Amino acid sequence: MATIENPKEILLVEDNPNDVELALLALRRNKISNHIHIARDGEEALNFLFCKGPFADRNLNNNPKLILLDLKLPKIDGLEVLQIIKSDPQTRKIPVVILTSSCEECDMVDSYQLGVNSYIVKPVDFEQFTEAVRQLGLYWLVLNQSPIF
Amino acid sequence: MATIENPKEILLVEDNPNDVELALLALRRNKISNHIHIARDGEEALNFLFCKGPFADRNLNNNPKLILLDLKLPKIDGLEVLQIIKSDPQTRKIPVVILTSSCEECDMVDSYQLGVNSYIVKPVDFEQFTEAVRQLGLYWLVLNQSPIF
Repeated sequence: MATIENPKEILLVEDNPNDVELALLALRRNKISNHIHIARDGEEALNFLFCKGPFADRNLNNNPKLILLDLKLPKIDGLEVLQIIKSDPQTRKIPVVILTSSCEECDMVDSYQLGVNSYIVKPVDFEQFTEAVRQLGLYWLVLNQSPIF
Repeated sequence: MATIENPKEILLVEDNPNDVELALLALRRNKISNHIHIARDGEEALNFLFCKGPFADRNLNNNPKLILLDLKLPKIDGLEVLQIIKSDPQTRKIPVVILTSSCEECDMVDSYQLGVNSYIVKPVDFEQFTEAVRQLGLYWLVLNQSPIF
């Protein structure tokens, strides 16, 4: 199994506790468990990214290396979160991967129109999900390059 | 070695014949050699995508599944090609991966601001380049989902 030696911060935006647990398990299995911040709704994700509310003390330049974003979220929907991230020059540079159970064409079209970097439909089978997370982690944390913040 | 069973069309935009050869070799090694269209400059890439000039007979809806785009291109530069692709709702949905030898911060920042999906610095070593192409192919042609055109 491949090991990612220098894990970078991931922002995982997911409200379903079971899905959070599965994602963390899959990330840990692939040695990319460090530095994962979990936001349980869209508002929390935006507060984290823009250093507001409970995250006012965060450094605005200390952006995560990758955002894994669910679509159906409480308070502020995933597509609205995506739109806000991709409208701001500071956060536009962060790769956003939609990780969702929705394979609806309209969700994909909207995500690409709003500037998503990648769209992945969560495999239902856990082994396939783990393999998807491994590929995703290797791709975005090792192969892909993004600007230094 | 993983095999990609259902290869989809890739648009490879690269002017350097050696780099084209290396990319094709790496793609073939990873069984993703089918349906690759090569454009040797930015103008040809845009003519292909927008079905103009020598490509007037192409079907505008038959978009490639992935665009691999070099930055330094004759006639129309890679960043301008990217800007045009990402400004048009029809082509905006196609994942564009910058595949370049440039690891300059300004090129990365400009690419992300213009809405690139991913930015990969070509490894100089051929084995590493082949492995990068394998990961890239698996990621964008198998794992990632994009709308049906």
